[in-house]
Amino acid sequence: MSVTESEAPTADAFHRGGFVLVQPRKGHRAGLDAMLLAAAVPDGFSGRLADLGAGAGAAGLAVAARCPEARIVLVEREPDMLAHAGLTLAHEANARFSGRVELLAADVTLAGRARRDAGLDDAAFDFAIMNPPFNAASDRASPDALRRAAHVMESGLFEAWLRTASAIVRPGGGLALIARPQSLGDILAALRGRFGAVAILPVHPRAGEAAIRIVLRAVRGSRAGLTLAPPLVLHEGESGFSPRAEAAINGQAPLFGA
Amino acid sequence: MSVTESEAPTADAFHRGGFVLVQPRKGHRAGLDAMLLAAAVPDGFSGRLADLGAGAGAAGLAVAARCPEARIVLVEREPDMLAHAGLTLAHEANARFSGRVELLAADVTLAGRARRDAGLDDAAFDFAIMNPPFNAASDRASPDALRRAAHVMESGLFEAWLRTASAIVRPGGGLALIARPQSLGDILAALRGRFGAVAILPVHPRAGEAAIRIVLRAVRGSRAGLTLAPPLVLHEGESGFSPRAEAAINGQAPLFGA
Repeated sequence: MSVTESEAPTADAFHRGGFVLVQPRKGHRAGLDAMLLAAAVPDGFSGRLADLGAGAGAAGLAVAARCPEARIVLVEREPDMLAHAGLTLAHEANARFSGRVELLAADVTLAGRARRDAGLDDAAFDFAIMNPPFNAASDRASPDALRRAAHVMESGLFEAWLRTASAIVRPGGGLALIARPQSLGDILAALRGRFGAVAILPVHPRAGEAAIRIVLRAVRGSRAGLTLAPPLVLHEGESGFSPRAEAAINGQAPLFGA
Repeated sequence: MSVTESEAPTADAFHRGGFVLVQPRKGHRAGLDAMLLAAAVPDGFSGRLADLGAGAGAAGLAVAARCPEARIVLVEREPDMLAHAGLTLAHEANARFSGRVELLAADVTLAGRARRDAGLDDAAFDFAIMNPPFNAASDRASPDALRRAAHVMESGLFEAWLRTASAIVRPGGGLALIARPQSLGDILAALRGRFGAVAILPVHPRAGEAAIRIVLRAVRGSRAGLTLAPPLVLHEGESGFSPRAEAAINGQAPLFGA
């Protein structure tokens, strides 16, 4: 890529230097959400994992860094983000992931033969993770009609993304996603009949404050019921993360118990 | 009622003596769930509230005890439980509720004209609370076919109970329910298009253990998004309830913030 200095991507260390992410200086930048999502994958995971809508690869790389036998496919449709994901993989600090992290240019919302033709085969993965983009419009106090339109879009988004996750994950395989609490109804509706054993972990900025995110795990084809895991509280005291949040963000401990 | 001594109902004090519940000695007995449900009603609530499936009246009485201007209708279809609810209202310890707590013999699952004819009029209430019976079969490790049947029954139960709640609560009025976490998907599906501003409060037996109940509040016709409230942890230390649980159970503080 040819870029001016002000447009040059940044190379940011995650997991206390465990890997580096090359990402655009402006726009959506990976951080806390991607690290929490990666922390939802069980310790010792050694199968094939799809990072759906991977962006520059933050969550997928974080899984690769913590799970040395995992094989990761970063799935992204935006050429600019794919380019940054390529720079991420080419970065010398990430050389140890060579051969077990690959890129796939594909639109997660494709279905049926178009999806398979794009490289997302049926039951080809042991796990899928996703941090679907959300429409900030529905956060704002916008007029009802706009809010309804945004909601319909977002509802369709989870349906499409989870339809793909359901298709590409083998029976008994896993799913993890991170989303806003207000999406929970859409997510549970889209999971129905596809994934079970749903475990929801609310993420609260501080004790006593409403959750700002949910991290959700599920098992393809399971009939087991939904559970609500003990919440994660991000911040304790005046500054800094709680020990549990710190460990999850830095790849030292998974978010969910065994 | 004419009963032998071993079948005689018990008269149990709740809210540290604030009211007495007369209930059967055997079978389902009211307790923690009913008190937590009642604690989901805001402090100072002064409208008309339906306790759907009221049993012997535990939750409705608990609201009446904490909210001195609330008017309560205990809705129950089982003659035996209605008889106990009548004994509860007639108990001298409950004399102060006279004139603002009444019984209604009606099946919550009725719809349309049959519901209205049974005394559950459209938009006739400012609030509805419910602790729907759940089928213990779906808790056990039963064969898949039985589990599926139990799930279908339970899914239909929430649809029927929330259809009635939606019909009888005025726009802008409130709903509170207590249920098991595994019912969350059915509940959110049945709330859709009927109630918004859903707030979910997970109830954990201890910090670090999965939730055993959810207490859920919602607003009829609201378009506001779902929130996840800070959880309630019931037990702290070796014995006894946490201060927040103790206050909620004894009618000293509502469960949800203002």
